[in-house]
Amino acid sequence: MSKNLTTRADNYAQWYQDLVIKADLAENSAVRGCMVIKPYGYAIWEKMQAVLDKMFKDTGHSNAYFPLFIPKSFLSKEAAHIEGFAKECAVVTHYRLKNAPDGSGIIVDPDAKLEEELIIRPTSETIIWNTYKGWIQSYRDLPLLINQWANVVRWEMRTRLFLRTAEFLWQEGHTAHATSEEAIEETRRMLDVYADFAQYYMAMPVLKGVKTANERFAGAEDTYCIEALMQDGKALQAGTSHFLGQNFAKAFDVKFTSKEGKLEHVWATSWGVSTRLMGALVMAHSDDDGLVLPPKLAPIQVIIVPIYKNDEQLKAISEVALKIKNDLEKRNISVKFDDRDTHKPGWKFAEYELKGVPLRIAIGPRDLENQTVEVARRDTKEKSVIHLTDLALKVQHLLDHIQESIYTKALTFRESATSKADTYDEFKKILDNEGGFVYAHWDGTAETEIKIKEETKATIRCIPLENKEEAGTCIFSGKPSKQRVVFARAY
Amino acid sequence: MSKNLTTRADNYAQWYQDLVIKADLAENSAVRGCMVIKPYGYAIWEKMQAVLDKMFKDTGHSNAYFPLFIPKSFLSKEAAHIEGFAKECAVVTHYRLKNAPDGSGIIVDPDAKLEEELIIRPTSETIIWNTYKGWIQSYRDLPLLINQWANVVRWEMRTRLFLRTAEFLWQEGHTAHATSEEAIEETRRMLDVYADFAQYYMAMPVLKGVKTANERFAGAEDTYCIEALMQDGKALQAGTSHFLGQNFAKAFDVKFTSKEGKLEHVWATSWGVSTRLMGALVMAHSDDDGLVLPPKLAPIQVIIVPIYKNDEQLKAISEVALKIKNDLEKRNISVKFDDRDTHKPGWKFAEYELKGVPLRIAIGPRDLENQTVEVARRDTKEKSVIHLTDLALKVQHLLDHIQESIYTKALTFRESATSKADTYDEFKKILDNEGGFVYAHWDGTAETEIKIKEETKATIRCIPLENKEEAGTCIFSGKPSKQRVVFARAY
Repeated sequence: MSKNLTTRADNYAQWYQDLVIKADLAENSAVRGCMVIKPYGYAIWEKMQAVLDKMFKDTGHSNAYFPLFIPKSFLSKEAAHIEGFAKECAVVTHYRLKNAPDGSGIIVDPDAKLEEELIIRPTSETIIWNTYKGWIQSYRDLPLLINQWANVVRWEMRTRLFLRTAEFLWQEGHTAHATSEEAIEETRRMLDVYADFAQYYMAMPVLKGVKTANERFAGAEDTYCIEALMQDGKALQAGTSHFLGQNFAKAFDVKFTSKEGKLEHVWATSWGVSTRLMGALVMAHSDDDGLVLPPKLAPIQVIIVPIYKNDEQLKAISEVALKIKNDLEKRNISVKFDDRDTHKPGWKFAEYELKGVPLRIAIGPRDLENQTVEVARRDTKEKSVIHLTDLALKVQHLLDHIQESIYTKALTFRESATSKADTYDEFKKILDNEGGFVYAHWDGTAETEIKIKEETKATIRCIPLENKEEAGTCIFSGKPSKQRVVFARAY
Repeated sequence: MSKNLTTRADNYAQWYQDLVIKADLAENSAVRGCMVIKPYGYAIWEKMQAVLDKMFKDTGHSNAYFPLFIPKSFLSKEAAHIEGFAKECAVVTHYRLKNAPDGSGIIVDPDAKLEEELIIRPTSETIIWNTYKGWIQSYRDLPLLINQWANVVRWEMRTRLFLRTAEFLWQEGHTAHATSEEAIEETRRMLDVYADFAQYYMAMPVLKGVKTANERFAGAEDTYCIEALMQDGKALQAGTSHFLGQNFAKAFDVKFTSKEGKLEHVWATSWGVSTRLMGALVMAHSDDDGLVLPPKLAPIQVIIVPIYKNDEQLKAISEVALKIKNDLEKRNISVKFDDRDTHKPGWKFAEYELKGVPLRIAIGPRDLENQTVEVARRDTKEKSVIHLTDLALKVQHLLDHIQESIYTKALTFRESATSKADTYDEFKKILDNEGGFVYAHWDGTAETEIKIKEETKATIRCIPLENKEEAGTCIFSGKPSKQRVVFARAY
């Protein structure tokens, strides 16, 4: 198979786009800004969903489902929220089509106009808090820990597969608590869940931090985030967890009677990750030959390719291959044996490289004689000859090792692409050359933050949670600063 | 807890509505016609999804995701399809809101009008076949076996929780094949999957059959269905599987090169079940005290309730209860131990009856002495005292037995509510008295079918697949007929 991938060095954005399409992850649809997630891409998303869903349930959450539509008036109830979301909404105004009187086709029936327009949810705080009003009366009803897996729509002018699309899939957690402390604890707990998922499953190191006021979710008191670094030195926000204070409880009048018999407003959190993680996964590890998938999220972990000249050889190899497949499946390793006679081994090698299958086992007539197979790692391309006797165990170890190894590589890259800047000139030079995360002093004002963004396109990705205090002066204004924050150009 | 359920005899429709709400399955939302699926209801739906998803994958299907939006022009491409769906669509006409110039709130931005309106998918044949055009070139690309889990919207004037809502959740399979035979085989295979799911998981017997031309899916050559009978004698269509012929392939110009090198249109199927199954599950088995859930779909299979007078007793009971919980969980039985001190045992008994938990284990001080527990079945209300020694195994057997027993009860009911009518008078009398499935001769014309529907509200539910030929005369027209078809009033 011919790959025709643009290289990362040539054009990173084009490489990404080529790879997503050629590896059969997703494609643009006939509807502007909306993507089709293809079976191979969706299989990775399903693996992500399964892991996250279990993590949410293990931390006490249940799933539920709320309407796709939000009455227009709901969006306006929380002042900051409407500012953040009103601009990019899909609006339903009618509920019927009809044949055009002139026979020219179908038209929107003007008689079927909605009294109040409905917005396709860009996020569900408003419809959910309107519902919670009926569910919460007493402290006994708290905490309320709910998650929703859903599609949401934010109209986007410039879209990129997975990274920014008008419709995307996500999960959104929405919890209600009796105290501020409990809600903040939940916000932090879910941030940790996201960080653990990124690290242990996506093999992607992330910075945990808090956003500046300027970068906060519309309607939040505090937005926590995980920030990852892509191979081109640009940051990607991979997940957010918001402490919403009592803003939505007040907007939707959700009160509870406390243990002490007092009527109080409820405290809230919301948190979400989306199919954007697919983009992060692709960009964090892949190379010029295709995807590199961490074994824990790879739909196919091991591909077996037979190398043969005639049917007799194929038959003998198939016996061994199916035995190996069976042994590996007993260890919950997902294996595919590709014995199609329509494609040559070389084509198959390239194809599964492109698809990021972590391990390839090739079996030829010589291997049969020696009771061995050739095992090739996708991440390092290293090959080794392994005896059949302890193959399953070795494959298991190799997969574990690849998982760690990909993580370490990404971490090493991030470290090498993280720097400190003490002057604005140095700051700009770093951004224009290597990019990456830049730790620099900032005076804490939105004004400075916005000016730096305008001039350099770099934003404050976060104030890291485990930041150490360090006196300094703002690189832009020269005013005093107590700590460095993390800047980067970002997706 | 006070149930206040209307009884089935008093008002079946009200009983259903009360039950869905009081058992915490779902509720009406602030958006007309849209429901909120509550955590307990959603947990049942998740169990259904997990089983069905595995069945689809075991029959070779992969999941994918297609856009929520369908360009208006796509809907018109298949003539019959547009007739069936154009009338009940949510139409997106704008993509932005803005502040009203007079400061009165937010309004739809008239400058953000879409060039072509977008329809919220009522079903995805059109957008999917438009996509398949790019995926299918050769016979090697076939069969294409894809399923999607998604939300869809069909504007409905009169809605009922789960049974008929504007937005609902479903899965829709869309497959492409090289030959008509293969596509028909697929249509029948998926019908069997649905029937097996209904029987072995929902414990709900279904008739497998084919719809008359009049009741076909808009755009199908043949619609196969499974039809269930509810306790009030009304039928419920629980799933459909459509043979679409080459209609969508022709409408969207999807051709493939056959093995023989000929360019041909592809053959298609589509099939779906929805959250409507939740309504069927509730109505098939439940009683005046609440839900009766088949163990295989019950989120909680066993509830343990302690009966105690003081903390010391609770402590001793808890030890035993947690040991039982642990033993049962080893057998993959889902168990909840409700040791809340905020509610009395009687309240808990009623609550879990309402929620349809298949087995209840009560443990009191006397049980501790005797090394026994009291086990109560939800379906029959039978109680038995069981020694701790072989409790886990007995619980396992009891759950299996309940699963079968619920099915048998539903099957017996269906048989008792199935009759034959040889005259139109007899037919009408049966419908007005016991209801149920009525096997009767029909002359095969849409005209007769429509008139019978107008006069009696009964429709032809299906022509059963394993129907035996039998000469007779149409109950309505007196014209000759070769077989009986199944009539019923339906949901």
